[in-house]
Amino acid sequence: MAHPLLNERDTEFLLYEFLDTEALLQRSRYSEHSREIFDATLKTARTIAEKYFANHNAKGDSNEPSFDGEKVHLIEETKQSWDTFAEAGFLAAHCDFDEGGMQLPEIIMRTSLAYISAANIASASYPFLTIGAANLIRSFANDSLKAQFLPQMIDGRFAGTMALTEPDQGSALADIRTSAEPAEDGSYRIRGQKMFISGGDQSLTENIVHLVLAKIKGAPAGVKGISLFLVPKFLLDENGQVSERNDVKLAGLLHKMGYRNTTSTVLSFGEREGAVGYLIGEPHQGLKYMFQMMNEARISVGAGASVLGYQGYIYSLNYAKERPQGRLPSNRDPGSKQIPIIQHADVRRMLLMQKAYSEGGLGLSIYATSLYEDQHTAPTEEQRQNAATLLDLLTPVVKSWPSKYCLKANELAIQVLGGAGYIREFPLEQLYRDNRLNAIHEGTEGIHALDLLARKVPAQNLAAYQMMQAEIRDTIMRARDKESLQSMANALEESLGKLDETGMALFGQLQENVDRGLSNATLYLDVFGCVLVAWIWLRQAIVAEKALENNPGEEDKHFYCGKIHTARFYFEWELPNIQQSITLLKSGNSIPFDMQESWF
Amino acid sequence: MAHPLLNERDTEFLLYEFLDTEALLQRSRYSEHSREIFDATLKTARTIAEKYFANHNAKGDSNEPSFDGEKVHLIEETKQSWDTFAEAGFLAAHCDFDEGGMQLPEIIMRTSLAYISAANIASASYPFLTIGAANLIRSFANDSLKAQFLPQMIDGRFAGTMALTEPDQGSALADIRTSAEPAEDGSYRIRGQKMFISGGDQSLTENIVHLVLAKIKGAPAGVKGISLFLVPKFLLDENGQVSERNDVKLAGLLHKMGYRNTTSTVLSFGEREGAVGYLIGEPHQGLKYMFQMMNEARISVGAGASVLGYQGYIYSLNYAKERPQGRLPSNRDPGSKQIPIIQHADVRRMLLMQKAYSEGGLGLSIYATSLYEDQHTAPTEEQRQNAATLLDLLTPVVKSWPSKYCLKANELAIQVLGGAGYIREFPLEQLYRDNRLNAIHEGTEGIHALDLLARKVPAQNLAAYQMMQAEIRDTIMRARDKESLQSMANALEESLGKLDETGMALFGQLQENVDRGLSNATLYLDVFGCVLVAWIWLRQAIVAEKALENNPGEEDKHFYCGKIHTARFYFEWELPNIQQSITLLKSGNSIPFDMQESWF
Repeated sequence: MAHPLLNERDTEFLLYEFLDTEALLQRSRYSEHSREIFDATLKTARTIAEKYFANHNAKGDSNEPSFDGEKVHLIEETKQSWDTFAEAGFLAAHCDFDEGGMQLPEIIMRTSLAYISAANIASASYPFLTIGAANLIRSFANDSLKAQFLPQMIDGRFAGTMALTEPDQGSALADIRTSAEPAEDGSYRIRGQKMFISGGDQSLTENIVHLVLAKIKGAPAGVKGISLFLVPKFLLDENGQVSERNDVKLAGLLHKMGYRNTTSTVLSFGEREGAVGYLIGEPHQGLKYMFQMMNEARISVGAGASVLGYQGYIYSLNYAKERPQGRLPSNRDPGSKQIPIIQHADVRRMLLMQKAYSEGGLGLSIYATSLYEDQHTAPTEEQRQNAATLLDLLTPVVKSWPSKYCLKANELAIQVLGGAGYIREFPLEQLYRDNRLNAIHEGTEGIHALDLLARKVPAQNLAAYQMMQAEIRDTIMRARDKESLQSMANALEESLGKLDETGMALFGQLQENVDRGLSNATLYLDVFGCVLVAWIWLRQAIVAEKALENNPGEEDKHFYCGKIHTARFYFEWELPNIQQSITLLKSGNSIPFDMQESWF
Repeated sequence: MAHPLLNERDTEFLLYEFLDTEALLQRSRYSEHSREIFDATLKTARTIAEKYFANHNAKGDSNEPSFDGEKVHLIEETKQSWDTFAEAGFLAAHCDFDEGGMQLPEIIMRTSLAYISAANIASASYPFLTIGAANLIRSFANDSLKAQFLPQMIDGRFAGTMALTEPDQGSALADIRTSAEPAEDGSYRIRGQKMFISGGDQSLTENIVHLVLAKIKGAPAGVKGISLFLVPKFLLDENGQVSERNDVKLAGLLHKMGYRNTTSTVLSFGEREGAVGYLIGEPHQGLKYMFQMMNEARISVGAGASVLGYQGYIYSLNYAKERPQGRLPSNRDPGSKQIPIIQHADVRRMLLMQKAYSEGGLGLSIYATSLYEDQHTAPTEEQRQNAATLLDLLTPVVKSWPSKYCLKANELAIQVLGGAGYIREFPLEQLYRDNRLNAIHEGTEGIHALDLLARKVPAQNLAAYQMMQAEIRDTIMRARDKESLQSMANALEESLGKLDETGMALFGQLQENVDRGLSNATLYLDVFGCVLVAWIWLRQAIVAEKALENNPGEEDKHFYCGKIHTARFYFEWELPNIQQSITLLKSGNSIPFDMQESWF
């Protein structure tokens, strides 16, 4: 049986019904495009995903990258996937025509990439990181650096990385120790060690462009002293050609539970004469710049988690339709035929949960991408600013909610298959292992919770938060037009009110004692995400209800009924789970905070 | 840093304070034992676990068993672990002195085995299955079979397996197709294929004794036609010595996500002349017999899940105490020293959850073992019968609750370590992979849910269920003596009442429509388990409160405070989560039941 990467009907729904992606064609930047071009791009991505990424997803997992002390070895299909991706122009899909790009909307590019991630999230890392690194260079580097490095990063000769984490500081960037010393030629000499650097070495490209956070000697302490450097693996000669090796050494590969075909590296900078690094932008402003790449990566992590959930959902759904086993409890005749397991209600429950999580997660990710799009290409400055403000608020949630719930989806997919789900002869256990990373990289769940509660929500007198409220209220109003959506509209209104009260209670607690007030932030992040995804589901249900009024064909009818039923499932089965967290948050429950180290 | 397998202080607490294991010394069967012997046994097990099992837990995972078409290869440490376990007498620890055993209480044996599982759950499978298989033969086989096979199974020359599942039926044993044909010599010829048979082939023992479910030709349809056969890998000659190969062939090994050093096999019986099998007990009674082994295995699965959770808890706790990173939110000085991550409240939350799940799970498992003990050795027939009745009710919960929550514990342990938790250079990701099996084997969560709701609770007019209620009420009464335990006592009483109402509501629904009434059974299983573990925690808190009254030493004081604080955590953070499931169950929410296949 074929197991599609995503549900094409759903992709179409999310792009053109849930969102109005065709409206982008009105923007002058996209005036040369058409719906046909969008769809052809998606189709190309899907074909590449199926042919060049899905083909070695399992193989790359069981033959992970190795390092012989000199070179890193990857299975050859990885190189083919990289080359095909680059040749198809996807590294530059969103870039200006002038730069040699396709000038496609971010949302079309990201939905295209969703197919790639669904096929092989590990091999997808190399191009994804390169896109983010190139974007960052384009935004903040001087013209000379751009000219030297960007063309090769968008045609696939050079790859990019983000080198933030160090062995001794992990999440606490304020404490990085990598140093940068000015050299006479205006460049810097970088010294230090970086860890967990994805794609930090590989055998795919002529060169690797590391974007490295480091502190210039004498810089202020903490995050205010961090600068950003471009540190290539190989230096370029005066003609811009790859020449001698820079003083960047692969200290070793790390061996992950999943995501195995992405190299995870420990890199040593400057063990000899110092690695040559080029300052990007102003000194001490590096973290601010890096946030652009981190935030893009965070949305990408949420999308990746969602499509891994989605892959598991599709696979276990197809399996459940075909695998006969047992009978309904009401059937006591052991001689009667066995039924496909989808006819067991508990299997349908596990499939519904997966559908609610993965379609909810993907909807949230695509919505976030539409904000990114608007931030850059909406017609008015106000619209662009609003989209930026809203996206900034939502990024921790867009990253974290799918990472948590779509891992759960993969856990359920395994359970649907039972023993078969647990063995490597079937693809589900790999999805589960791959997806476990997503709550960790690009900021752990706990880090995002602190970011949301301490920074993002209270920022600018709750401006972004109120914008989100207004958006949600608007949806609630629209849902009220339809009798069948009333109860969901009411439930969302109630939940939004509770989220509001909870936030207010927490701000009070924060003022009393910031350590204690932030101690349960992870619960707040979860509640916030569950309410946000309820909104995503209500929006989907509104669209589906309207579509049903127009008497669609049989298949579409089933599709829309599925959306509405899953929305109901989410509202009746999932959303009410926030109540317990709300109770704990509002009362400022301090049991974890009060737990003494000696009591463990 | 040393990472102990379990917390010895807690093991002591569970055996001698939470339960009164010393009281077993009053039973005539154990009159030759003493507390010192119990403790020495535990110490021996711990030493063997550390030296012969923990030594190759990671190695067995990365060098999983292989099959060259002739033989199965296991890393040699597996054989050493098997031999040491057998030589120390643990295969027969619970057996009568007459049989060459140590006649130790089940609870001492199982707690000993908990150390072995914590060290290496995969290598532990071989002896554990052998113990269960030998117990089954002892209970139901005729004297001749017992004489031929039991001595070698308790001295370690033969191993045992349970061969139930087939490729085409999975959980639906009623549909097995393996056949048994009577031969002239009184034995049978077995033909069919079995799948997911743990330990189905290996290179540890001279012989393997498969306990095979099969249908004698002409047997009734369904489970009433299942018989049990002893099918050795090698036949025995007239002197009881291993002789020619039986017609049992290893068709292949399966490759699991975790638990890798346990071979998971596909076995073909009777591809040539038919495998020689010996009927155990009466024809068509096989499933009833097999339930003894399945039920033992289920308790063992719950215990295994708990100790994997426990291992992750201990490891991540020690890591959190030592790993410096970041500062408290109230500390804005980037020049100040970083703090160990245990000082971050969110890390303490994740550790507390792990403590609540793993100590709760282990407490539940050890309690179940005490029921098993009483079932066999309590002084009066009534006590024995009551224990059997109660254990029969609780088995699905004892198996399922730890399998769900201690997997969550391992997920949290990974999160505490962040990136380090995700790489194979640290042991946590393996624990997580290993533990994922436990919600699947020995009956999936969904199967146990149906068993609990449709059979175990309503059995004999709720007799067992009411016995459990009485036990819990007794604890609630005892907790009321202590002011500090009042609120937990009240919460447990309230939850027990809700469980009761929920059950009654469900029985009503079942009578209306059995398929629909059972459709949400998995939620009921979860609620039931959460209430039961609340009871386990309240019992622990009562003991701890009493112990604190006696002014214990400093270390014990911390230990007891930890128990009480964790009980409070469980009651305030975990137990209230059942409310949403109760709401869905009582209202007979039918969203999953109503979901149409075409809507997915």
